[in-house]
Amino acid sequence: MSQSTTLDPKLLISRAEAELPLFLGVDVGGTNIKIGLVDERGRTLGQTKVATEDERGVPDAIGRIVSATSDLLNRAGCSMEDVQTVGLGTPGPMDIPNGLILVTPNLPGWRNFPIRDKLSEAFDRPVSFANDANAAAYGEFWVGSGREHKNMIMLTLGTGVGGGIILDGRSIEGTNSFGSECGHIIIDSREDARLCVWGGGRGQLEAYASASAVTQRTKEALQAGRTSSLVKRMKDGAELSPLLVSEEGEKGDPLCIEIVMETARYLGIGITTLVHTVDPGSIVLGGAMNFGGMATELGRKFLEEVRSEFRSRAFDVVQESTHIEYAVLGGDAGYIGAAGIARHDSMFATR
Amino acid sequence: MSQSTTLDPKLLISRAEAELPLFLGVDVGGTNIKIGLVDERGRTLGQTKVATEDERGVPDAIGRIVSATSDLLNRAGCSMEDVQTVGLGTPGPMDIPNGLILVTPNLPGWRNFPIRDKLSEAFDRPVSFANDANAAAYGEFWVGSGREHKNMIMLTLGTGVGGGIILDGRSIEGTNSFGSECGHIIIDSREDARLCVWGGGRGQLEAYASASAVTQRTKEALQAGRTSSLVKRMKDGAELSPLLVSEEGEKGDPLCIEIVMETARYLGIGITTLVHTVDPGSIVLGGAMNFGGMATELGRKFLEEVRSEFRSRAFDVVQESTHIEYAVLGGDAGYIGAAGIARHDSMFATR
Repeated sequence: MSQSTTLDPKLLISRAEAELPLFLGVDVGGTNIKIGLVDERGRTLGQTKVATEDERGVPDAIGRIVSATSDLLNRAGCSMEDVQTVGLGTPGPMDIPNGLILVTPNLPGWRNFPIRDKLSEAFDRPVSFANDANAAAYGEFWVGSGREHKNMIMLTLGTGVGGGIILDGRSIEGTNSFGSECGHIIIDSREDARLCVWGGGRGQLEAYASASAVTQRTKEALQAGRTSSLVKRMKDGAELSPLLVSEEGEKGDPLCIEIVMETARYLGIGITTLVHTVDPGSIVLGGAMNFGGMATELGRKFLEEVRSEFRSRAFDVVQESTHIEYAVLGGDAGYIGAAGIARHDSMFATR
Repeated sequence: MSQSTTLDPKLLISRAEAELPLFLGVDVGGTNIKIGLVDERGRTLGQTKVATEDERGVPDAIGRIVSATSDLLNRAGCSMEDVQTVGLGTPGPMDIPNGLILVTPNLPGWRNFPIRDKLSEAFDRPVSFANDANAAAYGEFWVGSGREHKNMIMLTLGTGVGGGIILDGRSIEGTNSFGSECGHIIIDSREDARLCVWGGGRGQLEAYASASAVTQRTKEALQAGRTSSLVKRMKDGAELSPLLVSEEGEKGDPLCIEIVMETARYLGIGITTLVHTVDPGSIVLGGAMNFGGMATELGRKFLEEVRSEFRSRAFDVVQESTHIEYAVLGGDAGYIGAAGIARHDSMFATR
């Protein structure tokens, strides 16, 4: 259930193997900030993390990022001279042209702070700024599950459903920095459709296929009197979560399997809409909620059900030619992708 | 109700006013093929059309296109020497990289014919090949309703619902030449949701908001016993169509107004999904079904209802900053956009 934290050894290299220039990727989350040093081919020379500690303020966090980066460079036998540019991924909503984080619920202290420019000053390097889900998608596109494809969409299944769209090698940011919010496409337009985790949108994919939605839907089924091995687990103190649903589903509990398969079908519906919109050829499912991924029978069935629902709804032309796979970079996708976007920007100088 | 056939005089120019080079746009439909001569700034020097006459075969049609173009150039005081490249828009599904039309229902004789390459030979010019709805969208983006915007989505409301997405000046073709099929996003995932005009997809926007869907939904309401001034019109020999619904709605018939407003709400739902996917900043409604457009009260109410439904469902960040407007180029958007894509390709040489 938990996402992989070990990077494919092919993606880990030493200073001697690295192809210059190097890029630094910084992936800001509510709890931790991951920092990774990545070479021209997307391979990691080293990574580290610092606590976000929102309450200490952003200047303090920048100081700790710079200091941790310095250690990271030392350990990798590199210096800042080797680093061409820096990529920064943060949760949205944000104002990308102006380099600001806006109303992000997890990072109140970071709101309206000129994070991109201050980090750029601190590192004395240009900083490319991206939505964290777009950065993770770019990571998978560059060296992960999407690496054979020209276009790709990644859905990140976590507390919410994040999205990243890459078309012809470019991350779709949108006019108002709100591009690629694929968790917020509408899959049910009825008045009594489910509400999103963060309130607001009704009937949107996130309200059906996120970890919060899985927990909520399971809770409702139990309240409606469905029997399940979950009941005993919860009596024994386990907390209801997609992880618990996953464990009991893998052991054969019918309700858990049903919840997982239903989640897959919701995703298949959303993916149909996304494919009919931009026809990416490649869909990658990332994030912590993968029901074991390719490592378990349940995870493999989940993926197969997503594909099957998609095929039953999509046009012939895209049915067989759209690849739907799990992500492979786990929690490393964010910093790798941020570094990749920085590299892309330095090559094309589009910003 | 019918789309404008008179181009804004600002978009019509003489040879003396034209900025070179010129581009030729060819817009293939089931009935007619429109051909237009367009300058560097998207202004039309002249236009003409030939009958498609599918049964006579494509080589015959190419011969007539070349001959009509020759007349068009003469009338405009130009020669083929002034034309840099040619743009060709055709109905999909198609194979853009290979320059083929695939299973298009309206043009059986054109299937799998190497139309792009044969037209290129006939004109001795490179030919850019695009889906007709994408071409029309590009036309509106270049010189029509979307001209102030960096990104744009156009929905074409006709027998079906066509779509075109332009991001950073590029038309989104997709991996399998199936990009921008915005009529096929799912707005209702229930098992008993409506079926698309061409069969296949269930619950897709086209099944609710196309001309065929409006006719079908009105028919069902009448069959269910709803009273309406439509009944008398039909007894007098009028055929049930969105045009008739539009006429009676403009005169105040409650059922017709209800059908039109409901159509607007379906579009608002679809637009929310599209905006949350690529955040274009600009949405343009084109095609023949516009209930009178800005020229009638019904048309203005329709547009206002689309905006209102969108605003009630979309995220704050995009709610007010997304412009939803009618298209302004009418039936000229297709050849203008095809010419515009040809110009874009010749500038960026991306194909």
